[in-house]
Amino acid sequence: MRNFEFCNTTKIIFGKDTENQVGSEISRVLEKNLSVKKILLHHSGGSTVRSGLIDRVKKSLKEAGIEWVEFTGVLPNPRFSHVLEGVNIAKKENLQFVLAVGGGSAIDSAKAIAAGAVNDGDLWDYFERKRFIEKSLPIGTILTIPAAGSESSTSCVITNEEGPWKRGMHSPLNRPVFSILNPELTYTLPLYQTACGITDMMAHIMERYFTKEQNVELTDELCEGALRTIIRNARKIFSGGERDYAARAEIMWAGAIAHNGLLDTGRLGDWASHALDHELSALFDLAHGAGLAIIFPAWMRYTIKEDTLRFARFAAKVFGVDGAYYDPEQAALEGISRMENFFRSIGMPVRLKDANIDLSRIPEMAKRVIHFGPIGNYRKLDEKDAEAIYRLAAE
Amino acid sequence: MRNFEFCNTTKIIFGKDTENQVGSEISRVLEKNLSVKKILLHHSGGSTVRSGLIDRVKKSLKEAGIEWVEFTGVLPNPRFSHVLEGVNIAKKENLQFVLAVGGGSAIDSAKAIAAGAVNDGDLWDYFERKRFIEKSLPIGTILTIPAAGSESSTSCVITNEEGPWKRGMHSPLNRPVFSILNPELTYTLPLYQTACGITDMMAHIMERYFTKEQNVELTDELCEGALRTIIRNARKIFSGGERDYAARAEIMWAGAIAHNGLLDTGRLGDWASHALDHELSALFDLAHGAGLAIIFPAWMRYTIKEDTLRFARFAAKVFGVDGAYYDPEQAALEGISRMENFFRSIGMPVRLKDANIDLSRIPEMAKRVIHFGPIGNYRKLDEKDAEAIYRLAAE
Repeated sequence: MRNFEFCNTTKIIFGKDTENQVGSEISRVLEKNLSVKKILLHHSGGSTVRSGLIDRVKKSLKEAGIEWVEFTGVLPNPRFSHVLEGVNIAKKENLQFVLAVGGGSAIDSAKAIAAGAVNDGDLWDYFERKRFIEKSLPIGTILTIPAAGSESSTSCVITNEEGPWKRGMHSPLNRPVFSILNPELTYTLPLYQTACGITDMMAHIMERYFTKEQNVELTDELCEGALRTIIRNARKIFSGGERDYAARAEIMWAGAIAHNGLLDTGRLGDWASHALDHELSALFDLAHGAGLAIIFPAWMRYTIKEDTLRFARFAAKVFGVDGAYYDPEQAALEGISRMENFFRSIGMPVRLKDANIDLSRIPEMAKRVIHFGPIGNYRKLDEKDAEAIYRLAAE
Repeated sequence: MRNFEFCNTTKIIFGKDTENQVGSEISRVLEKNLSVKKILLHHSGGSTVRSGLIDRVKKSLKEAGIEWVEFTGVLPNPRFSHVLEGVNIAKKENLQFVLAVGGGSAIDSAKAIAAGAVNDGDLWDYFERKRFIEKSLPIGTILTIPAAGSESSTSCVITNEEGPWKRGMHSPLNRPVFSILNPELTYTLPLYQTACGITDMMAHIMERYFTKEQNVELTDELCEGALRTIIRNARKIFSGGERDYAARAEIMWAGAIAHNGLLDTGRLGDWASHALDHELSALFDLAHGAGLAIIFPAWMRYTIKEDTLRFARFAAKVFGVDGAYYDPEQAALEGISRMENFFRSIGMPVRLKDANIDLSRIPEMAKRVIHFGPIGNYRKLDEKDAEAIYRLAAE
């Protein structure tokens, strides 16, 4: 087990009707003696409005004496140009807080705006790792799509259309001060987005699970337990349980745990699959979860011999594969195959062709993915490895 | 799943040599422009000194320009009169921070001192739930006994010799701002104390595990995984692995996770066994872990029919008991029996007579335990139930 530090300061407010607490929660965060309390209310402007959620949020803000400027239009793979619009509003209106209502895209966009509002210079520099933020506006979230784990994570991923580049900016300052998680808000989430979210949170756990670090038994157990819970409850949702509170709640809480930092204490995660997918998302605007459902099985097949027993354990503990004591590699491969079947069963693509990806651009993606150098920690991957994995995903 | 709030603000600093960071960590917490930085250094004065740990701590404090007043003499089941001495020192010397070096006793004592230093009136009132603290000095810890989980919990349990009463005072203000966990510091912990700690952390998980709340699958899985990890690594330590870093590390991190609040998100824990043990500890000065090893199996046998399948699941998932599909109650009982065997294998008592408890005082303990009313949530227990459980523990 590696030395580590762990602290997660996000206050999780979980359960039915909790969105109605948002005004009082923000009041608690803002300085006491402000003559005007004014925040950025950031969301898609689509389903958040149609569902009546934004009306309830505004009512709660009003009751708490909080004014807001509404800034809508967030899209999946949130755009840097849109972030800059938000930054301008936040600066011009002297806003004190950013509230994101939505999924990972709205939250990541809010994090970038919060950083841009109080850090001068070119905001993209922080995504290019040329500089690091030293302050940020406080952020709160009302989550509607369990997926990215951004509701209590340090991550913020934005796509700059000029490249296009999809880049992450990581800082403890990105952690929301509070996140409101009401599983009822996810009842109306389309099944495709539900599936993308489920794949994303599973990938967050698997990125951590596949490590060369030995003696990380507690986190192994926690990862496996979380994965089993996600799979079991995903099956309930996809068998007509769209409005099954219990199943939606397990998925929603698991999505936060998957990416709040707990599951990589004492170990070093891999993150090559995320990098490989970022190129897919950036070039083809593919949903992040869908890209991961394609990349992860290929990455696993490519790296399986690094530590066959770890893959066999994964197969046995997460997908109930028997036979690892006779032939670990066979069991490991069976685990990958069952994982693909699970992804397929919730409507995810598992090959590049399922998502109509133009295979001729594989060399370009392989080149782009090593922008900051080799990727991955479980096994370091260079351009050639990346190309080989994209090709495996094309088979 | 119940609505819940969860936030754990303690920064965990885990791994080898981390105690040498203590000075710089405290500096980070204290106000920047203090002309004098002065803290209470609170520990047993025994093994903490002999091991050389306190010397290293003092060196780190000195390097960070921090002065200290040393206050030693903490004992297991820390005494209220001793806490009051600490409070007087903290007030007289205008101390700004309390650093506990030791196990749960030192940490709980530090929490009580930190509360007493800045809250007026009779400090015991807070333990009698007559008043609730609204502020506290910041606390940091260097943990040497993985057990109580006090290093990142809201709990503080103190024994008032006048009763004697053993009472808890719970507040988010009790959470340490940082806790340093170096598994190497536990190499020299006597096996009896190691076993008491292991039992205590298992009990913390089981108090949460046995709940009437349905649909808490994620936390069920996390609880079971943590219990398996503790048992597996306890066996390593008790098979000559006292200096096995990996095993000590798993136990140490599990002890913190067991009681940091994560494992009861969405559910209501029971806590009757803790209450039943507090009377044992208060009257007979029995180590908390040893008392729990006696009480928990008796409590389980007494309440098994409340939800036999939950006990059968516990038996299957934690102790590998087969047969739950034929006869759940038999499997559940087999699980309790295996748990007792495990406790015995690490040198714990499992019956009152193993700890030389005077059985004639059972009625008195049963009366005392309901001081605040019926105990437990899984099943509400009155005086008669409590007596029946103590009698089961006597068999």
